[in-house]
Amino acid sequence: MSVLKEVLDANLQYVSEFGDKAQLAMPPARRFAILTCMDARLDPAKYAGLSEGDAHVIRNAGGRASDDAIRSLVISYKLLGTQEWFVIHHSNCGMEFFNNELMGDLLESSLTTAALSDKGFVDVGEGPGSSEGKYINWLTIADQAASVIEDVTRIKAHTLVPSSIPVYGFIYDVATGALLEVTEATKIGVAS
Amino acid sequence: MSVLKEVLDANLQYVSEFGDKAQLAMPPARRFAILTCMDARLDPAKYAGLSEGDAHVIRNAGGRASDDAIRSLVISYKLLGTQEWFVIHHSNCGMEFFNNELMGDLLESSLTTAALSDKGFVDVGEGPGSSEGKYINWLTIADQAASVIEDVTRIKAHTLVPSSIPVYGFIYDVATGALLEVTEATKIGVAS
Repeated sequence: MSVLKEVLDANLQYVSEFGDKAQLAMPPARRFAILTCMDARLDPAKYAGLSEGDAHVIRNAGGRASDDAIRSLVISYKLLGTQEWFVIHHSNCGMEFFNNELMGDLLESSLTTAALSDKGFVDVGEGPGSSEGKYINWLTIADQAASVIEDVTRIKAHTLVPSSIPVYGFIYDVATGALLEVTEATKIGVAS
Repeated sequence: MSVLKEVLDANLQYVSEFGDKAQLAMPPARRFAILTCMDARLDPAKYAGLSEGDAHVIRNAGGRASDDAIRSLVISYKLLGTQEWFVIHHSNCGMEFFNNELMGDLLESSLTTAALSDKGFVDVGEGPGSSEGKYINWLTIADQAASVIEDVTRIKAHTLVPSSIPVYGFIYDVATGALLEVTEATKIGVAS
């Protein structure tokens, strides 16, 4: 069965059990936002206990505080009233397995999916690729705890972010499902 | 109870029921990715039938094909093997209620949350604000079906996106939970 049909079948089931969710308001009822990674193993609604209507969820590769994540966070508080934010990276993140140089080289070699060998990602496709990847900052991660602190710091320091908003930093452990808080004081010793 | 404690309590519950999810692989098992809005009413795992490990989920304000969303999608296929992508905007999106000019003015006026009146968002806070918002493209939406088509088109046309990847466009209806497909042929007449 194709993914498209599977998704639409699952959606029909969801519609049949939709209940009174049409009544939900646009502003998040619990007034907070989560910025986390797109990783398939993470379900922020499940790991943080969210129901529909509760909180904004922003996700990208790495859960990084990119300009676009900050665009979303500023809209989240300025127009829709969120008052607390969580930055949640995770253990065993794909962003730890490459850097800008490697990604540029892989994309220059081909646009097909690379293989992950014990030497890291290696290209197995046939060209043509594109050198365009060399002009993108992929926002990779060398150390999870450090990247959480960097992103929390970048968000707090942003001109458009009021100092009244607490920004909590966490690492989600894909081996246990646990959220481990990361602060300047605790970042040394947190497993990545 | 503070949101932080609520989230951590919910997480403890999740950890206690984590089961065998530590076995999940990094690459999405069902080899697809969803780009959708951060809106609190949307739970893509529920509306599209995802379990942990199934699919990448990328979310930002509007579900827009920003440069950062494209960064994430390229990582998704090039390193982690996704083969089909969904762009899913939704009805009653906050991004339909303002534009770049208004957002710039609101942020210049103050950094406190605006009120939504029958005249649209109005500032009710006290300054100081910041003129920095005038330099950001907020990627607002005038028409949902048109924005879905624009974003699908932008992704398909990107130099780093192989033509073999199907990109499906949908609008999620917040009144029913239904996914409505949007194509060039159907975009006229789809409610936004």
